[in-house]
Amino acid sequence: VLRRIASGIEPLLGAHPDVASIGLGLPGVVNDRGDVSYPPNFRGWEVVAVEQELRPILRTDLPIAVENDANVAALAEAHAGSGREHRHFLFITLGTGVGGCIIHDGAIWRGATGGAGEIGHVSVDFNGRPCNCGSRGCIEAYIGHRYMSTLALERLGDSRSSSLRSLADSGRELEPKLINEAAESGDSFAREFLADMGDMLGAAIASAMNLCDLHLAIVGGGTSRAGQYLIEPARRSLRARVLRSIADADLRVAHLSNDAGIIGAALLGLGSVGARNTTGPGTRDQGPGKK
Amino acid sequence: VLRRIASGIEPLLGAHPDVASIGLGLPGVVNDRGDVSYPPNFRGWEVVAVEQELRPILRTDLPIAVENDANVAALAEAHAGSGREHRHFLFITLGTGVGGCIIHDGAIWRGATGGAGEIGHVSVDFNGRPCNCGSRGCIEAYIGHRYMSTLALERLGDSRSSSLRSLADSGRELEPKLINEAAESGDSFAREFLADMGDMLGAAIASAMNLCDLHLAIVGGGTSRAGQYLIEPARRSLRARVLRSIADADLRVAHLSNDAGIIGAALLGLGSVGARNTTGPGTRDQGPGKK
Repeated sequence: VLRRIASGIEPLLGAHPDVASIGLGLPGVVNDRGDVSYPPNFRGWEVVAVEQELRPILRTDLPIAVENDANVAALAEAHAGSGREHRHFLFITLGTGVGGCIIHDGAIWRGATGGAGEIGHVSVDFNGRPCNCGSRGCIEAYIGHRYMSTLALERLGDSRSSSLRSLADSGRELEPKLINEAAESGDSFAREFLADMGDMLGAAIASAMNLCDLHLAIVGGGTSRAGQYLIEPARRSLRARVLRSIADADLRVAHLSNDAGIIGAALLGLGSVGARNTTGPGTRDQGPGKK
Repeated sequence: VLRRIASGIEPLLGAHPDVASIGLGLPGVVNDRGDVSYPPNFRGWEVVAVEQELRPILRTDLPIAVENDANVAALAEAHAGSGREHRHFLFITLGTGVGGCIIHDGAIWRGATGGAGEIGHVSVDFNGRPCNCGSRGCIEAYIGHRYMSTLALERLGDSRSSSLRSLADSGRELEPKLINEAAESGDSFAREFLADMGDMLGAAIASAMNLCDLHLAIVGGGTSRAGQYLIEPARRSLRARVLRSIADADLRVAHLSNDAGIIGAALLGLGSVGARNTTGPGTRDQGPGKK
C-alpha cells in the first residue's frame, strides 16, 4: 500500500519542485507519532510507522504529516467548507465505513490516544446487527456501504413491487446510489428503507451530540451525495432526539465532497492548521491540533 | 432552591471565618458564565444566573464558582479518587438521573457550550423506551433510579418466584438497592435483571469510549454502590464492545462515593483545579478548566 501511495506522490514531486511538505490521510487510528493502527479495510496491517516507512521509498527530506482520513476531511470542512463559521462540530463520512471527527475549537479533537471521532461505532441498538468490529448495532453496521446493500437485499425479500428487486436479480449490488435513484423515481420500498437508515443515523448523531455538546453535524462521503432521501430523515430524527440545551442542532451536507480529504491532507502537510506530526530536518511544528 | 442552598451555606460561613470561596455543583447544563439551564429535576427552572441570585441572599463578596454536579464529582475523582493516575476518563454517576463528565487532560471537557458529558442521553436502542428528554432508548431511561424501579416491576409481572414480588406487593418501591440485595441473596430474577441493565450500561459506555477515545470509565453515584451485580456485567459488556484500539478499556467504581460532589465543589471553589467561574471583587480566576 505504501509503495502504491509513493508511486502517486513521486511524479508530483518531480513536476513541482516547490512542494513544501507531504500530508497523508489514512484509515485507522493515528497516534501522536503518526503510527497507523489496524486500518479496518487494509488486511494484515497492524501498527505501521508510516512516515518512517515512506521516507526511504520517496527518498525525500520533506516534512511528512500523517493523520486519520476522516480527520483531514473534517479539517478541510472546518477551514474551507461547511464548517467555516463554526468552532465546534461533528464530521461524519459515509462510505465503505462510517468515519468521523470531532472539531473542537477549530482543531481536530483527538481524545486520549488519537482515536476520537469514531461515530461509526456508536451503537444504536445494543442487541442489533453484528458489526465487523465485534460489537452490535453500530451505525456502520447499517449504513456502511456494504452493510447497507446487504440489509436492503434482506429487507426486499421476495417483494416484486420495488424496482430494486430486478436490479438485484440481475446481479447488481444494491449500492446506496442505486437505492437513492430508486427513491428519486418514486420507489416506495427505497424511500422507506432510506428513511429508516436516516432515522438510525440521526439517533447515532444525537447520542454523540448529547455526549459531546455539539450543535452541528456535517455529513460527507459518497453516500451523503447519493442520499437525499437519507439526509432529511436523519435531520428530523436528530432534532427529535437531542437534549433541550442543543435544540439548535443542525445537520449539513459537506461542501467539499470528495475533495475534502485531499484539501485537508494538504492543509495538514502545510502545517497551516492542526499539524501534529510534521517532522523533517530541522522542523518540529506543532500546530493547534496538538496541545 | 437557592434559599435552601443559602441556608446550608450561611452557618458554615459564620462558623468558619477563614472560608476562602464557595463552590457549587448543580444539575443541568452550566454555561461559561455559570448560568444553570433546565435542571431536569428542578421543576420550573429555566435559565438561572446562580451566582447573581445567590450573592445578595448570602450577602458575601467571596468568590462563587458554579459547575454541573457530575462535573464537580468527576473533578474530585480526577484529583483525589479513582482517576488520580489518569489524564483522560469518562465519569458516570448513577442516581435519579444518569449524569457524566469527560475528563480530558486532567480537566473537565465542556464541549461547545458547557454541556458535554451527558452519557445518560446516549441511546442504546433507537426504538427503545421513551426517556423524559423526548428521545428513546437513552441509558437513563433504563438505569435512572425511577426508570429502573418501573422496569423491574414491569418485568416481574406475576412471577411468584422472586422475593421482589412480595416487596412490591407490600407497596415498596423497587429501588436499585433492594434489587441488589435480592440478587445478593440469590434471587435469580434480580440477578438476571441487573445483568441486563449492566449489559446496556456497558453498551452506552462503549459507544462513548469509541467516539471519544476514552480508555477508562469511573462509575459513581448511589446505584453504583448498591450495584455489585450491575457493575461486573457492565464491565464485560464494555470490553466486548469497544474498538480494538481501546482493548485496554477498564471500568472502575468511584472511590470517593457520595463525597465526590462535595470534594469537587470545594476544589472548584478553591480555584485550585478547573475553576471556571470564580468571580469576586477584584478576582477573575480562570483555571485549567477553561481555555
